[in-house]
Amino acid sequence: MANSPRVILGIDPGSVKTGFGVIAVQRDGRFVTREHGVIRTKSGDPLPERLVKIFQTLENVCANHTPDIVVVEQAFVAKHVRSALILGHARGVALLAGRLSGAEVHEYTPTQIKLGVTGSGKAPKEQVQGMMLQLLGLPTLPAEDAADALAAALCHALRKPILEL
Amino acid sequence: MANSPRVILGIDPGSVKTGFGVIAVQRDGRFVTREHGVIRTKSGDPLPERLVKIFQTLENVCANHTPDIVVVEQAFVAKHVRSALILGHARGVALLAGRLSGAEVHEYTPTQIKLGVTGSGKAPKEQVQGMMLQLLGLPTLPAEDAADALAAALCHALRKPILEL
Repeated sequence: MANSPRVILGIDPGSVKTGFGVIAVQRDGRFVTREHGVIRTKSGDPLPERLVKIFQTLENVCANHTPDIVVVEQAFVAKHVRSALILGHARGVALLAGRLSGAEVHEYTPTQIKLGVTGSGKAPKEQVQGMMLQLLGLPTLPAEDAADALAAALCHALRKPILEL
Repeated sequence: MANSPRVILGIDPGSVKTGFGVIAVQRDGRFVTREHGVIRTKSGDPLPERLVKIFQTLENVCANHTPDIVVVEQAFVAKHVRSALILGHARGVALLAGRLSGAEVHEYTPTQIKLGVTGSGKAPKEQVQGMMLQLLGLPTLPAEDAADALAAALCHALRKPILEL
């Protein structure tokens, strides 16, 4: 399988919106976007139900694309203990789904990801969306959280020479 | 199955030590302890591996005992954003394992649990351990985290009249 593309799933976890994006890195270095989207949960629903939805959707994405690598965005530094705790729940099930799929799991900070795909660690959201459109040749602007997830995947691909992926 | 006992799994999640305890509530009101223990993970191991260990152990416990109800201790108010975030990861996979087993999932605060099993919301750890020994007729003092998990399960059983369980 030396010539098969490497598949990377990026995840931007959140308790209300979890972005995901799957890219394949061809042997010639080209990137192909396989799927991207946003898992939405209702903040009024019980937390266990919301975690099941995030986990099962990511499980399905992994089953469909069998990623070699899963990249999960590290948490922004939450201002409040409570929001950090809730975000941790979503990150926990994202890391779990990634690892259970058999993929290698990597984590990057939002700054590393923005720097990797835009050249600036402080790039605004729209700049990241715009770069995804351009670098991945998407037909339309991806949703914010999906763009962040694609950026996480792409950041890993760009940091690692293809043979090491 | 009107005469079968109701099985309650209590979980006290933590990133390094996650306590669990399974009790069965007989129709005559007696409590029987089925299993209790502590899932230990190494703080030096990658977080995804640690979450997989917590999740898979809880999955096995659920498969062995098919709990009707899973009670997860709510987080103490962490002092630091970072510790809240890490604790959130462990709680996330605990709530997920409970819900995926098909059980109803409930959450109680540490204060509610201590109050429920000792009569004081400020009871020290040893008092909770001692009460578990007594109320559940255990042969030896349970480990601290296992005692907290058993207390979570028992707190729910004591709060709800048996017919409503």
